[in-house]
Amino acid sequence: MQTITSSNNPKFRNAIRLHESRGRRQQGRMIIFGLNEIDRARQCGIKFVELYVCPEMMSDQARSIVADAQSHHSSNTYNLPVGLFQRIAFGSRADGLVVVADRPDTRLNKSSLSDNPLDQALILVLESIEKPGNMGAVFRSADAAGVTAIFVADPVSDVFHPNAIRASLGSVFAIDVFCDTSQNFREYLISRNFSITTARVNAQQNYFDLNMTGRCAIVLGNEQAGLSDFWSGPEVVAARIPMRGMSDSLNVAMTSTIMVFEARRQRSANETRSAD
Amino acid sequence: MQTITSSNNPKFRNAIRLHESRGRRQQGRMIIFGLNEIDRARQCGIKFVELYVCPEMMSDQARSIVADAQSHHSSNTYNLPVGLFQRIAFGSRADGLVVVADRPDTRLNKSSLSDNPLDQALILVLESIEKPGNMGAVFRSADAAGVTAIFVADPVSDVFHPNAIRASLGSVFAIDVFCDTSQNFREYLISRNFSITTARVNAQQNYFDLNMTGRCAIVLGNEQAGLSDFWSGPEVVAARIPMRGMSDSLNVAMTSTIMVFEARRQRSANETRSAD
Repeated sequence: MQTITSSNNPKFRNAIRLHESRGRRQQGRMIIFGLNEIDRARQCGIKFVELYVCPEMMSDQARSIVADAQSHHSSNTYNLPVGLFQRIAFGSRADGLVVVADRPDTRLNKSSLSDNPLDQALILVLESIEKPGNMGAVFRSADAAGVTAIFVADPVSDVFHPNAIRASLGSVFAIDVFCDTSQNFREYLISRNFSITTARVNAQQNYFDLNMTGRCAIVLGNEQAGLSDFWSGPEVVAARIPMRGMSDSLNVAMTSTIMVFEARRQRSANETRSAD
Repeated sequence: MQTITSSNNPKFRNAIRLHESRGRRQQGRMIIFGLNEIDRARQCGIKFVELYVCPEMMSDQARSIVADAQSHHSSNTYNLPVGLFQRIAFGSRADGLVVVADRPDTRLNKSSLSDNPLDQALILVLESIEKPGNMGAVFRSADAAGVTAIFVADPVSDVFHPNAIRASLGSVFAIDVFCDTSQNFREYLISRNFSITTARVNAQQNYFDLNMTGRCAIVLGNEQAGLSDFWSGPEVVAARIPMRGMSDSLNVAMTSTIMVFEARRQRSANETRSAD
């Protein structure tokens, strides 16, 4: 185990650069804070490249994660003094451990979903979501609902932003995530006979009156601008969530939660019926 | 319009004390930040007592709210210099206006819900929710789903905490809110023939298999400890939200959103059927 004592150390400087989206893109890596998030990344097979530890601050759980990573992975571990560690941990609940890991491959290709039972696939498409925290919250409930994959369309923020990882409780590592243009995703979905349901405030039909069983994609738009007109046309059905109160909108995480759990409810009803 | 120039001014000091839960309780008042929240409070008939303004920082929208309050309410307006205003605005998006208002009466009594059509009443009971931000998020989606009233049971945090108001986007003012013990709420609900549905991770039945039409109360527990055993017994039905992913739980705002929108869906289906 090496000890890093200077903030000019190149490894350390590269790790610090992972706080920024540009650094993550350039290096093809990400930085993971939080023991639960780190543990979930490990369970999901995310490849750990470097572990930065601060022995004075480490909890028992952190020690056991480090021991496991050292015995199972080819990752390097670096000791940091408290001052340097606090810079790398960036105000997070740290527990004395921060991990630098490879970013999962998020390119969509023909075989992307081949391991999944495509006939019941439920795909969530997120168009240009701005806040990483919102994205993470969407991932958390999508994971709980058993969504097959998330398509991050025309991304404006990084799906592996530390706030997205944290808000997802690490479930961003559990779901298959793909990043591409709306155009490519739409072509992919239509060529594979997905039904495409969009959530729009001014739609005619209620979301629960639409069939979201079978091969289905649910498309949600940006927090401020809503969904672009690109996601309309004959292959697309718009659904509204009826609103009763004085709120004029739900946030994207709530909208997503309602939609994916309704799809799941319909599927459960179908499964019960098939089993009869 | 008076100008306050000293932080020793008694009005100013009382307003500052409203940042704390104890001050709000002692004075029977609350402090509202954010123009949208202030505007919703006004629409909901919340009584404004004092307006604190910083002319240099005021937006046009803030000016029009102040003009309206001055012509329709018996509230007093105080000018503050920037330094004092920033202390009272407490790091919020301020727009040059902060309002001190009377807290709504949250005592439950026999006539509490008399104005509502009790036969279709949908009540959300929140037991000992800890984080004001969670409470506010729950209010936002409950309002959107048309929940009749929220019962804040055995409260451990203030429903009119600035973070609750903000996360609710002001919908905390739109819904009838009552604060009391779980015991009193339970007696109230049972004596009025409400069905009582609790959300529990280990329940046998799925939430969507339960009938949540008619007079129905949905009971959700604390973020960490979950719902206490008090909410069990022959009058209570436990429901689970089936989980597929690696997340072991949804947060309370997501759980609430799923439950109240499912109740709303079932009611819509009923209304359609009745109309046939």
